[in-house]
Amino acid sequence: MSPLSRRRLLTSAGVGAAGLGIGGAGFLVGQETAEANAEGTGTVEFYGPHQAGIDTPAQDRLHFAAFDLVEDDPQALRDLLEAWSAAAAEMTRGEPVGDENDLLVAPPDDTGETVGLLPSSLTVTFGFGPAIFERPALGLSGKKPAALAPLPPLPGDELNVLESGGDLCVQACSDDPQVAFHAIRNLARIGRGTVVMRWSQLGFGRTATTSRSQATPRNLMGLKDGTANIRAEDTGAMDRFVWVGDETDQSWMRGGSYMVTRRIRMLLEIWDRSSLEDQEQTIGRRKYSGAPLTGSKELDPLDLEAEKNGKPVIAEDAHVRLASATVNDGERILRRGYSFTDGVDESLGELEAGLFFICFQQNPERQFVSIQRRLGQFDALNEYIKHVGSAVFAVPPGAQRNGFVGEPLLA
Amino acid sequence: MSPLSRRRLLTSAGVGAAGLGIGGAGFLVGQETAEANAEGTGTVEFYGPHQAGIDTPAQDRLHFAAFDLVEDDPQALRDLLEAWSAAAAEMTRGEPVGDENDLLVAPPDDTGETVGLLPSSLTVTFGFGPAIFERPALGLSGKKPAALAPLPPLPGDELNVLESGGDLCVQACSDDPQVAFHAIRNLARIGRGTVVMRWSQLGFGRTATTSRSQATPRNLMGLKDGTANIRAEDTGAMDRFVWVGDETDQSWMRGGSYMVTRRIRMLLEIWDRSSLEDQEQTIGRRKYSGAPLTGSKELDPLDLEAEKNGKPVIAEDAHVRLASATVNDGERILRRGYSFTDGVDESLGELEAGLFFICFQQNPERQFVSIQRRLGQFDALNEYIKHVGSAVFAVPPGAQRNGFVGEPLLA
Repeated sequence: MSPLSRRRLLTSAGVGAAGLGIGGAGFLVGQETAEANAEGTGTVEFYGPHQAGIDTPAQDRLHFAAFDLVEDDPQALRDLLEAWSAAAAEMTRGEPVGDENDLLVAPPDDTGETVGLLPSSLTVTFGFGPAIFERPALGLSGKKPAALAPLPPLPGDELNVLESGGDLCVQACSDDPQVAFHAIRNLARIGRGTVVMRWSQLGFGRTATTSRSQATPRNLMGLKDGTANIRAEDTGAMDRFVWVGDETDQSWMRGGSYMVTRRIRMLLEIWDRSSLEDQEQTIGRRKYSGAPLTGSKELDPLDLEAEKNGKPVIAEDAHVRLASATVNDGERILRRGYSFTDGVDESLGELEAGLFFICFQQNPERQFVSIQRRLGQFDALNEYIKHVGSAVFAVPPGAQRNGFVGEPLLA
Repeated sequence: MSPLSRRRLLTSAGVGAAGLGIGGAGFLVGQETAEANAEGTGTVEFYGPHQAGIDTPAQDRLHFAAFDLVEDDPQALRDLLEAWSAAAAEMTRGEPVGDENDLLVAPPDDTGETVGLLPSSLTVTFGFGPAIFERPALGLSGKKPAALAPLPPLPGDELNVLESGGDLCVQACSDDPQVAFHAIRNLARIGRGTVVMRWSQLGFGRTATTSRSQATPRNLMGLKDGTANIRAEDTGAMDRFVWVGDETDQSWMRGGSYMVTRRIRMLLEIWDRSSLEDQEQTIGRRKYSGAPLTGSKELDPLDLEAEKNGKPVIAEDAHVRLASATVNDGERILRRGYSFTDGVDESLGELEAGLFFICFQQNPERQFVSIQRRLGQFDALNEYIKHVGSAVFAVPPGAQRNGFVGEPLLA
């Protein structure tokens, strides 16, 4: 039986065919239509020159997972990426994983929790951690890009090794959290025996704008986050700051990017006790409008030279100043993070919550690391945050149709 | 300054009033409109004979928190419920908490992350744990309803005390997870000094149908969940099974209900390795259509008498049989649970995920406990689940306008 598209099922069911069977036991469903339309209906193409999930307008929800290889077996790694890519392509089209989902005598290939849901703009983005290039048995040591290295210690790091690193990563973004969960779960299932999950992170709300079509969301500090982010429509900036180009020493990375993730715990109780003025001085923007302290509208440019009573209007240690391209030799990054909460921090008796920061760039040392060195040392925001998780991954270019992500590296 | 409605802000901004200030520094926002409309726009009334969040059509997302009182101070408890109720009423209307949100010199009353978001059908539901009636200093010992008692040990319990119990609970449901998070966070903030958060739970997808207007969602086993649930439109069933009526020994509970929560971990790896036939026999329904094994459509009635080759078609240990009203002396409960995932279970190397089960009923012993005694002992599903958290709360009736939840108890 060919995989049945969830979208196709819905279309059929929409014609009133409750109980209609297709091909036997039937990956089919009667009364699924009523609510499905409330969720995003978009389908994002899996195949292409770049992996989806980087310049795709940031979806609402995230499920992220990092995996470690069980064995240093190059064939197993290649098989995994091939199977993962095929499954990701199916899921992004809204189809169940695999072909055998209605044989009574076997476990279904797909776990089934998205039957009846729309593709919901799912993207699945794969990355390789630095460690896989260091293991002789994998045979990849000659292929390590110079730009890929574990992040150096950074000022203010309080990293938990259990929430950091990983040989491989999968970023699943979707407008429906169940669709993102389903992707990670089924990829983990396909990988069983080859990889173990090292850590994972659910993100409940996007905190970055990556397209001119999107409004700027607020992070859990109540601040608009991502106003100055690169927009995917700015192809000049994407080529200069995000996509790996001819400057790379490893041709298999051309068209790819480098991803840095940081689990940033927000100390919300302390933040919530600071005055509105402190909050606005700390960030350098108005809380409600998002306008820089030197402007009146969100998109007004920062005026880092402006002074009042002999002091800079945007303080020397304001977050927006230290993160700005002006202060960072013109360097920028594409941010694509999500808010998270993971229960109660028992040591503080408050919600364990914050920002799961994700960024993409051409060169982590030149971009994220340089910017974070400055921020980690001087940013007034440091009083209210802790970086507790960290990872870096080489995100190869997209797969060709019938090919797989990482094929030029692993073939 | 009077609280500004997020809805009102949106309306203003929609007229193109970027940067428009209302009342000074301005809880105002320019470019918020573009995406807000993608989320649910509903407003659910906070005040009324019953608390909202019980017979409200189950929203998509949950944030739940249990709190413990810091001191046995009856006035502090009363003040807390009064402040919580006022804040909940504001938030459900889409307004920020409190009045003072634009004084530069003070911390804003509201944390701000929902500025620009719609009410998104937020409901906030408060409950009292059994322990508060046992503390002489609180003066409530004569007011404990006979129906409220800690749940007895149940077959198969593997409870973690850190994810169980609590003096007070808050269930925040919304179609937008940021709106639900904002509610819990601001109530926790208001409660600081009076309560500490004991545990909390984020639910990313609803797994029950509580209204005839809703399609049945799937849980993380890929099964439709809640087909046989009570629908709020069935007021006869609501009165018989859910709302506390004249049978109570405590008049302050009339119009309320009792809530049981169970954190049910799903052993998804084991489930995913079982055949489709095993999965369907375990539950007693077809996986994809949700039809009982004795029918062809989801809403077909169970035929518990049907046999094939001398054996019951719906097995003796099938979940739907043991959970059915027929087997449980006609008793039913109103389920209102959510799927969750909380990272990686390091002992198993798999996703820690499952169902955060919530149910409402007139009498926990007569309803949930009786049903769960049978399920915990005989249910074929037990092979694939573990109950790891548990709590019970008396959920008083709704507040009168200008009153507060629990007023008849605490006044």
